[in-house]
Amino acid sequence: MNTVYREGDLLVTAGGRELRFPAVWLRDNCPCEHCRDPGTGQKYRDITDLPPDVAVETVREDGDAVLVMFAPDRHRSVFSRRWLATHALDDYGDGDGRTEDDKELWLPPDLGGRRPEVSWPRYLAVPAEQIRALDAVLRLGFVLLPDVPADPGMVLQVAASFGYVRETNYGALFDVRVQPSPGNLAFTSRQILPHTDNPYRDPVPTVQLLHCLRTAADGGDTGLVDGFAAAAELRATDREAFDVLTATAVPFGYIDKETELRTSQPLIQLSPRGRVRGIRFNNRSAQPVRLPYRDIAPFYAAYRRWASLLARPERQLNLRLRPGDCLVFDNTRILHARTAFAMSADSPGRHLQGCYADLDGLASTRAVRERGEAC
Amino acid sequence: MNTVYREGDLLVTAGGRELRFPAVWLRDNCPCEHCRDPGTGQKYRDITDLPPDVAVETVREDGDAVLVMFAPDRHRSVFSRRWLATHALDDYGDGDGRTEDDKELWLPPDLGGRRPEVSWPRYLAVPAEQIRALDAVLRLGFVLLPDVPADPGMVLQVAASFGYVRETNYGALFDVRVQPSPGNLAFTSRQILPHTDNPYRDPVPTVQLLHCLRTAADGGDTGLVDGFAAAAELRATDREAFDVLTATAVPFGYIDKETELRTSQPLIQLSPRGRVRGIRFNNRSAQPVRLPYRDIAPFYAAYRRWASLLARPERQLNLRLRPGDCLVFDNTRILHARTAFAMSADSPGRHLQGCYADLDGLASTRAVRERGEAC
Repeated sequence: MNTVYREGDLLVTAGGRELRFPAVWLRDNCPCEHCRDPGTGQKYRDITDLPPDVAVETVREDGDAVLVMFAPDRHRSVFSRRWLATHALDDYGDGDGRTEDDKELWLPPDLGGRRPEVSWPRYLAVPAEQIRALDAVLRLGFVLLPDVPADPGMVLQVAASFGYVRETNYGALFDVRVQPSPGNLAFTSRQILPHTDNPYRDPVPTVQLLHCLRTAADGGDTGLVDGFAAAAELRATDREAFDVLTATAVPFGYIDKETELRTSQPLIQLSPRGRVRGIRFNNRSAQPVRLPYRDIAPFYAAYRRWASLLARPERQLNLRLRPGDCLVFDNTRILHARTAFAMSADSPGRHLQGCYADLDGLASTRAVRERGEAC
Repeated sequence: MNTVYREGDLLVTAGGRELRFPAVWLRDNCPCEHCRDPGTGQKYRDITDLPPDVAVETVREDGDAVLVMFAPDRHRSVFSRRWLATHALDDYGDGDGRTEDDKELWLPPDLGGRRPEVSWPRYLAVPAEQIRALDAVLRLGFVLLPDVPADPGMVLQVAASFGYVRETNYGALFDVRVQPSPGNLAFTSRQILPHTDNPYRDPVPTVQLLHCLRTAADGGDTGLVDGFAAAAELRATDREAFDVLTATAVPFGYIDKETELRTSQPLIQLSPRGRVRGIRFNNRSAQPVRLPYRDIAPFYAAYRRWASLLARPERQLNLRLRPGDCLVFDNTRILHARTAFAMSADSPGRHLQGCYADLDGLASTRAVRERGEAC
């Protein structure tokens, strides 16, 4: 027998290793039908319902099953050895797929011939192709879907194929084209350097879609930068700047006749374990930073270093969206840019439609589709 | 003349104090029409467009105006002394209204006779009453809107009055009533202890609405707990537990046939300045924590302490929603609970409709309405 208990803990050999689990952790994760709803897996008990002095009293093995009886209330739980092996308490991470640890960071040459691209008809027809597209957004931060009909409103159908549209003051969808009295510099023909959208919003939209209806005669090209890869470079080359930026809340704001949005967040956001989890970068809507005088110079040194790094041409993947192309990207990681474009009297000009959605719904759809494929 | 420059900085007397501003900060915040779009206030220039050796070269005063000429490029900016006074660099905070510093923390007796309540017809008819209601959500974390017609779907109209509905896998709206095969314990008649909704979602919905269509004959009462006030108490009485909970990512998950959501976040989330900014608490959907063995016991001690504190009856404001009552609350701060309720063969039973929305839209609507009132 290789399963014992010591000081109230469970010691078990599983997956070829000796593992140790505290009683309170085991009991909180008891899978029995008195502790959880068999249908949903949701827990019935709150942590305050468990005895404060819970301990492992006896252990018995039965093949893959490890039967535990707890003191003081003699509650019985059955754990599978396989489950225990995959939940070993030395083997951990942030675990929700959202930090740099679960991403494939890139510079444009790394993508080489395999720029993630799935044509819309195949995305709709072939579940494995949809999985590949959604997986690209989660892993690389973006996917290009060509051959979406270049019809107004189609961008909402693309969003609905994997999640839920996040409506904002810009509407359910917004038109990116030159407007006579633009409420936002996006709606001019100016060059726009790499940025994330809506940094003044909390919660920020975590997915952005841009669907090309019409190209400009000249210019208006799209650029993408992997902000997580850039943050990793900043940390490796200028740790001081990285630490300043992850610890400083920068205020962002947006005001028009109908709207007044404001939030303060770091330019580089970390998980509790200190891993890169989010990028906000948008000089257009940055408001005056409010720091003690002595912190201003170090902040600006770090900010300038970070902005220069993000603006390096070799970091930018350049795309020229053609009518029908729909770009889907992670707005917490990928910065997007566009070159200036020419306006001519005899051309109707560049026209994209965009909308926002969220990563949680996208990741859910991928996971559920994968179940289907695995059957 | 009381405005000078020293070491490239601006020194100015404003609001009765001598203030110092670094040149780079001033220049980055230049309000002139070459630096910003006069319509939107958005910045044209990126930080990398500014000379790295920017300094204040000359300063001239003209009443409230402070005219600065910068080296090396002789760019001229005009700042108002009043603006400088309100942006003094020693006077700072997180600044976006989302942390405990911008809230009024409460225990039920603090609310006394002034439980925030605005009847729906008055909310619609009187702008100042709408402002009062939205302000209550931002300041106290909730408001009760009685007299919303007890008709299905009305909850979406309430959400649309201040923001945008956040659609999820539960739909644009969801029915909270006993279901034959519930996908969630919310849809049973069980007691549910104080919790926040959808902790397995990132971004989490930041506003929740619950609209009562029918009450239970007995039970099904609603309880609200101020999570920020509770977190402040935890910090004051058990700093070690507070530090463990703010630094530990807890995984949450939800799975059904159509959905698979997962996120890892601390139970108490802090701003970069270390102020309480968000609460996630929901034992039902908590997944096994993944920590090194040695950290499990301290985590569970802290978790149990926190859960006990949140479950204290004296922290809970008890309400019995009547048909037509719509509760709007901050899901990043306020925990909600309900007592068990009786099902009887001759009563159709308790029925609420709920939906989610976000705080940024709500705060924007309040700000814009206030402008209207100020005119």
